[in-house]
Amino acid sequence: MTDDKPRLRVAMIGYGFMGAAHSQGWRTAPRFFDLPYEPELAVIVGRDAARVEEARVRFGWQRAETDWRAVVGDPDIDVIDICTPGDSHAEIAIAALEAGKHVLCEKPLANTVDEAEAMTVVAERAAELGVRSMVGFSYRRVPAIGLARTLVQDGRLGGIRQVRALYLQDWLRDEDGPMTWRLDKTLAGSGSLGDIGAHAVDLVEHLTGSRLTGVSGTLATFVEERPLLAEGVGLSGTASAERGGVTVDDAAWFTARLAGGAADGAIGGFEATRYATGRKNALRIELSGSRGAIAFDLERMNELEFYDATAPAGEQGFTRIIATEPEHPYMANWWPTGHAIGYEHAFSHEVVDFVTAIAAGADPEPSFADGLHIQRVLDAVERSAAASSAWTPIP
Amino acid sequence: MTDDKPRLRVAMIGYGFMGAAHSQGWRTAPRFFDLPYEPELAVIVGRDAARVEEARVRFGWQRAETDWRAVVGDPDIDVIDICTPGDSHAEIAIAALEAGKHVLCEKPLANTVDEAEAMTVVAERAAELGVRSMVGFSYRRVPAIGLARTLVQDGRLGGIRQVRALYLQDWLRDEDGPMTWRLDKTLAGSGSLGDIGAHAVDLVEHLTGSRLTGVSGTLATFVEERPLLAEGVGLSGTASAERGGVTVDDAAWFTARLAGGAADGAIGGFEATRYATGRKNALRIELSGSRGAIAFDLERMNELEFYDATAPAGEQGFTRIIATEPEHPYMANWWPTGHAIGYEHAFSHEVVDFVTAIAAGADPEPSFADGLHIQRVLDAVERSAAASSAWTPIP
Amino acid sequence: MTDDKPRLRVAMIGYGFMGAAHSQGWRTAPRFFDLPYEPELAVIVGRDAARVEEARVRFGWQRAETDWRAVVGDPDIDVIDICTPGDSHAEIAIAALEAGKHVLCEKPLANTVDEAEAMTVVAERAAELGVRSMVGFSYRRVPAIGLARTLVQDGRLGGIRQVRALYLQDWLRDEDGPMTWRLDKTLAGSGSLGDIGAHAVDLVEHLTGSRLTGVSGTLATFVEERPLLAEGVGLSGTASAERGGVTVDDAAWFTARLAGGAADGAIGGFEATRYATGRKNALRIELSGSRGAIAFDLERMNELEFYDATAPAGEQGFTRIIATEPEHPYMANWWPTGHAIGYEHAFSHEVVDFVTAIAAGADPEPSFADGLHIQRVLDAVERSAAASSAWTPIP
Amino acid sequence: MTDDKPRLRVAMIGYGFMGAAHSQGWRTAPRFFDLPYEPELAVIVGRDAARVEEARVRFGWQRAETDWRAVVGDPDIDVIDICTPGDSHAEIAIAALEAGKHVLCEKPLANTVDEAEAMTVVAERAAELGVRSMVGFSYRRVPAIGLARTLVQDGRLGGIRQVRALYLQDWLRDEDGPMTWRLDKTLAGSGSLGDIGAHAVDLVEHLTGSRLTGVSGTLATFVEERPLLAEGVGLSGTASAERGGVTVDDAAWFTARLAGGAADGAIGGFEATRYATGRKNALRIELSGSRGAIAFDLERMNELEFYDATAPAGEQGFTRIIATEPEHPYMANWWPTGHAIGYEHAFSHEVVDFVTAIAAGADPEPSFADGLHIQRVLDAVERSAAASSAWTPIP
Repeated sequence: MTDDKPRLRVAMIGYGFMGAAHSQGWRTAPRFFDLPYEPELAVIVGRDAARVEEARVRFGWQRAETDWRAVVGDPDIDVIDICTPGDSHAEIAIAALEAGKHVLCEKPLANTVDEAEAMTVVAERAAELGVRSMVGFSYRRVPAIGLARTLVQDGRLGGIRQVRALYLQDWLRDEDGPMTWRLDKTLAGSGSLGDIGAHAVDLVEHLTGSRLTGVSGTLATFVEERPLLAEGVGLSGTASAERGGVTVDDAAWFTARLAGGAADGAIGGFEATRYATGRKNALRIELSGSRGAIAFDLERMNELEFYDATAPAGEQGFTRIIATEPEHPYMANWWPTGHAIGYEHAFSHEVVDFVTAIAAGADPEPSFADGLHIQRVLDAVERSAAASSAWTPIP
Repeated sequence: MTDDKPRLRVAMIGYGFMGAAHSQGWRTAPRFFDLPYEPELAVIVGRDAARVEEARVRFGWQRAETDWRAVVGDPDIDVIDICTPGDSHAEIAIAALEAGKHVLCEKPLANTVDEAEAMTVVAERAAELGVRSMVGFSYRRVPAIGLARTLVQDGRLGGIRQVRALYLQDWLRDEDGPMTWRLDKTLAGSGSLGDIGAHAVDLVEHLTGSRLTGVSGTLATFVEERPLLAEGVGLSGTASAERGGVTVDDAAWFTARLAGGAADGAIGGFEATRYATGRKNALRIELSGSRGAIAFDLERMNELEFYDATAPAGEQGFTRIIATEPEHPYMANWWPTGHAIGYEHAFSHEVVDFVTAIAAGADPEPSFADGLHIQRVLDAVERSAAASSAWTPIP
Repeated sequence: MTDDKPRLRVAMIGYGFMGAAHSQGWRTAPRFFDLPYEPELAVIVGRDAARVEEARVRFGWQRAETDWRAVVGDPDIDVIDICTPGDSHAEIAIAALEAGKHVLCEKPLANTVDEAEAMTVVAERAAELGVRSMVGFSYRRVPAIGLARTLVQDGRLGGIRQVRALYLQDWLRDEDGPMTWRLDKTLAGSGSLGDIGAHAVDLVEHLTGSRLTGVSGTLATFVEERPLLAEGVGLSGTASAERGGVTVDDAAWFTARLAGGAADGAIGGFEATRYATGRKNALRIELSGSRGAIAFDLERMNELEFYDATAPAGEQGFTRIIATEPEHPYMANWWPTGHAIGYEHAFSHEVVDFVTAIAAGADPEPSFADGLHIQRVLDAVERSAAASSAWTPIP
Repeated sequence: MTDDKPRLRVAMIGYGFMGAAHSQGWRTAPRFFDLPYEPELAVIVGRDAARVEEARVRFGWQRAETDWRAVVGDPDIDVIDICTPGDSHAEIAIAALEAGKHVLCEKPLANTVDEAEAMTVVAERAAELGVRSMVGFSYRRVPAIGLARTLVQDGRLGGIRQVRALYLQDWLRDEDGPMTWRLDKTLAGSGSLGDIGAHAVDLVEHLTGSRLTGVSGTLATFVEERPLLAEGVGLSGTASAERGGVTVDDAAWFTARLAGGAADGAIGGFEATRYATGRKNALRIELSGSRGAIAFDLERMNELEFYDATAPAGEQGFTRIIATEPEHPYMANWWPTGHAIGYEHAFSHEVVDFVTAIAAGADPEPSFADGLHIQRVLDAVERSAAASSAWTPIP
């Protein structure tokens, strides 16, 4: 529809929850932001021909394919967008980068540190040839988070001494809920830790510019057996009479030391769980600094609370900023002040930043190296938990 | 992309804020809901050729036109979507309905009761011929509002005795903000009263199934002169040195009696204002009944508070329901629980309901007759305000 | 216990809810504040000898009496504290002032404007002789309200254009709840309007320094008959089979114009009700000004929300100030920061201010003249409601 | 004032913050609750004669003394209430119990496990002789906490799997704030851990009926040197030019396993800190169970949030219960519904329960044995922290 703009032809591998979100991001971003390229929803890829065709129609892609390797080799494709479970990330991403395609890879980057290392090596080599790669830690693009980062960078929190980062969900509360691929270590890599704990780690590092350098961790699996899906391992479905073992953590706790950035020398308390009854999507971040603090809860994603400890005595308190003002990141392109945006636009903004970086010849963030670092944090948590919670450095 | 579905070819007149929202609704609805027709964003219409072409590209329409009459007469168009200021609603809607086009008309239905009456007569005649019409009170389609309505209809609130309905914004707080078309009675019909007060009235009637039967009203204009726009009357722009008179209300208050439905005999307190400093989009609805209560605030549009006065003594309180569960209206088609949707999907849902009604041969709600009734309420408020707030029945 | 301080011997007439609260105030104030006099809880007065003796023991007074006239004439008494229903305020207060006793009179000052006028004349005459009088609008002494007033006086809200003042309770929600003296116009004067609406009016005037000059009002009685108390008219008790007519308003709404002070030219929306299901003690005040806003809810009495519209763009929002800092009125004498005080200390602070004024030879606020003005506002609301809500000036 | 009730003559040792709170509790409890004894504020004890006399007057005690041993031996004293820093608890409590006085001892019970063990032995021996002892974990007596406990005991949360317990304050945020006795390990025993972390542990155990059985802990001191007080070690005062070393933890984090009770097999995440910028007194408890959850924050001490996971799908959410109903623990004796009580009444209720237990010849809770157990938890956290956070069992 914009005849004068170059096209960016995207192929998306996978069509589950993330496929729906990414599709909406690719479709929506160019309608609200002035992008250097007009993305084309060219190909959607899945193993099951009937289901991927159904997804194609529903999500609005031009063509459906079943062989990702063929698509990766297709000269008409510019971008590979990986939305599969973590066990196939490495293989697809490496093939795509080596074929010269820009790659957007869902988080966590991989299921193991080894895979993530291999991917990072390839990504860095590809970058030298102008091929871009990015990990999909989409919450970095929530406007309230962008605002929080600006406040940190402007020194409004002073030196950050303490971090609280909890990601609380409750969809495993019912012990008769069935096994899905997310409870199978082979496919998912880990449980709460990698699925949602990874977001908590990434946001803390993104907001502070600091890195976690060591952890003491604990993992627990509260419900060790669950009904198998009648249809075999998948996203969801009917429970069968047979039961299978949960092979991932249900919840993870870790204390971490941070170095560098605004939280140099700080200590953080982390928790990731799918058993926090009543909490649906509560990614809570609190940063406590010598001059101020912020608090964020993803259940109210359009709000940020900011405490300015330099305000006049008697007027201090947490200010609930509704992050829908034109001054807030991305928001000048949306609705009038006070009109909420939804979850999906973390992906719209991810598209904006990814496409912009490609056009600018710049490496987008978070890089595969960033994703690898997160993977090392998760790995250190698992090793600490296996070693009686002993403090474990992050390489 | 869905070759087997019949197309519904839409022409949208107007391309301001509402044009952006409607475009996103038309584009998004079929990707998340299984609609009987696949809507086509066929034609966008505006008076200024250059600007409408720019809007066409930005909003993603196939063709731009400048003459709405030609488009209304175009046999390739099925639906006319009216997003212009209120002064042109009557003329466009009547022409479109008489040309056999289904019409979605932004609220308020018209700037005067006379216009709204004429539109309603034509709409009812058209309905007999299978031509559908609907007024765009989109907030009816917010899932939390749908949930509230179900609670009322299920008798969970008992008999409703009191209503509180306030729509609070603050974008006129700065007295040096310029004149826009919304401050000009000729174009906008009224100020806060018609722009946002109309939403409050519609939601109360929608939630309760009751009608306002009389009002005592007060209007005020706090800032009587504002800088004119350098570019002439429009949506926004640079202020010139010249000043012009504000001819609409800045704020409106009214007390109303209700009859019929769940709030039969109830009394409501209403307020609409653009001077509620710090309130960005606070459409607050509270219904107090003999058995329960609800509270809603559009600034947190994914939440509903429900008080069950029949719960055990000692356990009563307002329950904050995050209205993102599959059990909630529209939400089974969106993201996992706890993932927010944004403002724009009131429009996506409006499209769903409008298209579904067209396919079903049913009259969608709210009808032009509903819109006319709202217009009569607004008119009664104005007449009461002019008569020293004396109680004024609504015809 | 403080041998060197002069005593202030108090007699309290009445021993219901207000008697309990005042007793705790008199007992507590000198333990946390350095008062010029040590108050002595000398005499408690009630008509029923057995019940007043029981109250004496429970509330901790030295002596119980049944004849208030004798106590008013007792030379050993310095202060008369009137906690009876409104129908006896005038007679007691006038007798006490004429006997040279300082008088603290619960609100509302009286049941009629005539009574309030007579009381005011006597109070002003007494003041010339150094005899002090005060009306018990205790919420003025909530620290968060004191903070709000300071912000208004310091110009932090700019010119206030709009006021919202609602007092929402729900203890009459159940239509089988029995008649008490508060539902009998002869004893209570009015219903929600005088009992709780009076607080809303007083707080608005106290915070803004403005006066209500005219109103348009509406009153309603939702439940017109209720079971009589088996024991006769009283505070509470067992319902009998017989029913009696409710003779007061269940809820009141009024719109008011203000003049003078920080809200000169402003308009306010008021509501008082005992049918707001789920709201237990929600006295909500919002003031919207050209430079800022405040919001208060008595259900969270230790908090004030303040919006500073002069803060940097992108950082504005309502700041939740926990009003427990030493910088906040009265709070330097209480607990460390963050430790809540309770409802009763509005009375403790009332004692502080009353005793301080007596010692300083100054007239405390709110005066009987202030109370009379509130009475005139309530009366104007009733007259407006009786006149089809027509706008009614306040003398 | 109540001639017929036996007196309970209390001596309070110490007159700092806790002295003020206990005094108000002793004075207030008998005025709102029907106690078996009438407490008499007989003697207040402190080392500095002038200051204790000043405290006597301010807090309203009959007599001031400087030698606690003499008071402990005084046959006219029934109860010793210990409000001194932790380093003197053991000596005073043991002497008092051995002299046959009932003892209420502020928390933490002692500065070391050894002291706490000795105290417990003596307390158990004394109990056999009818001499009662209790530790002052006053927050157990907050009505919202009592309500939470009832919900847990009634099985409304099902099996509790996860616990979150954070006590966040920020009064050490400013690194130029001076040294006080609370930062000196010799006097205070530990820092955040013992002062406020102890409350978190006690509340979790009280609410669940479970015991912590092992911990992995981390401690940190963010500001290692602070200005000394000009007046020497004390509660507060002017900073001198000299600086001294902080010898306690500024913050503590620990993960714990629980056994027994409603949280058998659960895991808890704990944090205690005085550097949580903007958090004044945020003792936050969250319990997540198979059937429900609760959330509490001491900054809103009159509220409890309860999530009922057995409620109808679509109606679930956290219910904000204002814990001021007559159905809630202790609240039938206070104000009408919706009227807040303050911090101090945790102490009033402590007095109620302590005095009631004495009269009933029952051992009050929490016992010294409970206090000893808490001490062992704190000790295990310190040992774990010193051992690289390795998991450490609690004896």
